[in-house]
Amino acid sequence: MTELKNDLFLRALLREPVERTPIWMMRQAGRYLPEYRATRAEAGDFMSLCSNPELACEVTLQPLRRYQFDAAILFSDILTIPDAMGMGLYFSTGEGPKFKRTIDSAADVKNLPIPDVADSLDYVMAAVSKIRTALDGSVPLIGFAGSPWTVATYMIEGGSSKTYSKAKALLYSDPESADLLMEKLAQTTTDYLNAQIRAGAQAIMVFDTWGSVLEPEAYRRFSLASMQQIVDGLIREQDGRRVPVVLFTKGAGTRLRAMVDTGCDGLGVDWTTDLAEARELTGGKVALQGNLDPSLLYASDEAIRDGVIRVLESYGKGPGHVFNLGHGIHPEIDPAKVGVMVDTLREHSPRFHS
Amino acid sequence: MTELKNDLFLRALLREPVERTPIWMMRQAGRYLPEYRATRAEAGDFMSLCSNPELACEVTLQPLRRYQFDAAILFSDILTIPDAMGMGLYFSTGEGPKFKRTIDSAADVKNLPIPDVADSLDYVMAAVSKIRTALDGSVPLIGFAGSPWTVATYMIEGGSSKTYSKAKALLYSDPESADLLMEKLAQTTTDYLNAQIRAGAQAIMVFDTWGSVLEPEAYRRFSLASMQQIVDGLIREQDGRRVPVVLFTKGAGTRLRAMVDTGCDGLGVDWTTDLAEARELTGGKVALQGNLDPSLLYASDEAIRDGVIRVLESYGKGPGHVFNLGHGIHPEIDPAKVGVMVDTLREHSPRFHS
Repeated sequence: MTELKNDLFLRALLREPVERTPIWMMRQAGRYLPEYRATRAEAGDFMSLCSNPELACEVTLQPLRRYQFDAAILFSDILTIPDAMGMGLYFSTGEGPKFKRTIDSAADVKNLPIPDVADSLDYVMAAVSKIRTALDGSVPLIGFAGSPWTVATYMIEGGSSKTYSKAKALLYSDPESADLLMEKLAQTTTDYLNAQIRAGAQAIMVFDTWGSVLEPEAYRRFSLASMQQIVDGLIREQDGRRVPVVLFTKGAGTRLRAMVDTGCDGLGVDWTTDLAEARELTGGKVALQGNLDPSLLYASDEAIRDGVIRVLESYGKGPGHVFNLGHGIHPEIDPAKVGVMVDTLREHSPRFHS
Repeated sequence: MTELKNDLFLRALLREPVERTPIWMMRQAGRYLPEYRATRAEAGDFMSLCSNPELACEVTLQPLRRYQFDAAILFSDILTIPDAMGMGLYFSTGEGPKFKRTIDSAADVKNLPIPDVADSLDYVMAAVSKIRTALDGSVPLIGFAGSPWTVATYMIEGGSSKTYSKAKALLYSDPESADLLMEKLAQTTTDYLNAQIRAGAQAIMVFDTWGSVLEPEAYRRFSLASMQQIVDGLIREQDGRRVPVVLFTKGAGTRLRAMVDTGCDGLGVDWTTDLAEARELTGGKVALQGNLDPSLLYASDEAIRDGVIRVLESYGKGPGHVFNLGHGIHPEIDPAKVGVMVDTLREHSPRFHS
């Protein structure tokens, strides 16, 4: 493998000294970019784009041509796993992801197969290795998956939800089936992420987008415990280098404290928790990634500059910070605004590392 | 005025000893009740229901005929204030609240009138006094308003929002105009709530539904500061009795700590923060109201019973707890499930007060 020219991101996640704060952006390959929209139109629908390694590689690289990001992230979707389990994922325009089949009963959970992901999701691994080659060591490549609870909400609800009524009814009314579902998802996700690492992913993100809609006890049992299982099962070193793992529970707040104990290397923090507070909650034991409010990119250039500096100041001096938005970039954002954010970070972050 | 027969709710908010934990439910007068749906159909649309004191009184009382709740809450909407400011509130089916006019510029903020709410919202005060008479001292009546920030999001976006892009752009790009808007809303809201108290409201709730979508600094400046202004301006005693004020920021988490300093009597807590943690964060200086996950009411009776007991245990022994959901009841909930919750609370809560 080619030597990595820019390893700021990996070093920051291991809380090693860096010259400046590295940056990448959740959903950096996405709809806010006209070139992404063009490639997606070429592919047809969203799943055709995900399952075409050539095009998935292309959209992964697009943001890196525009901005000096310090990491690439595989272009894919968190719902490839239930799709590989035979649930029939599809995307209907304007409505988000949908499943042809749903998990409705204890029997459905029991009958859910554990797929051979290296085989059924071979298109993802092909994309990973293609991207890794194309990056040619310029920046590291992040692989990812959804957390079992987050993925399960879609499998049970059949798509997005506002109340998570069915998913929560399963957790609360039949916790044993819920445990089994999380167990199956955790096992499959671990296999999947390890296959990504073997194919070339150099860091791993687990997105627990809906973790915080659970009450604390249910969160620990159904979301955190399954993320713990994944962290425990992951390949943590590849080609003589640590493969850092970052967990992101949106709206985690004080749950960050418990997340540290999973043994992850970093935690994603959304914009509702101050990084100074997050640093205190996590006792400096992990790196922190975040946390500019994505909606700040709707504001003036000056407001964006102030916001970037405020995030840097809230983390304060020293290593262990990866700059990011507090959640994925919104599709309507003007790409020029991202440039303002990146430029401000490159200008101001060095003084936090002197 | 008639003497209050059941003052458990008021006593609990003042952290005085009670025999059992009082309960009311956010959106207790609402769509989950068939009798509410019938009255609403009779009224025509939602605003016709709100602005008809007779019917608003009827739907306020409906849940009290079914369940042994310890408080009534005025049936109204948080958007009556911008409507009184001339913004033209209407409800389009399935889309939630909309405004004919929106706040788009500094000039719009400057030109926004401060209405005489006792006059323009006289239908609300008429409903309050009608309900108070109808209650005949059975339980206390809660008056309410939205927080200035929460109300402002609808005024700027023209309705509901997922990203709050326009509202946040105003805060971040033109904070002085945002300050002026919050100032106008805080002043009007204070007048409005005081008029409700004079008309018969015995406790006040301020709903800051969207406070937690702001980053901590913006939350303090634009949401918390305006709630502070309201608390400072409220009538705190009426007919020789304290009028307690409860603030509710959904997803407040560690912000509960700062909310205590407003001088409120109680804080609403949603289900994502454990009450034990909330009690620690607030140092026992205020009462806490909450916090059963509203989606638990989709689950089995047994799961609901376990959940109610878990909430009681998380608060622990001693005064200062008002039982509630962590957010409004969902419209699809079976009314029988609410009965299970209330019965469980009445059976189990006395041992937390012995």
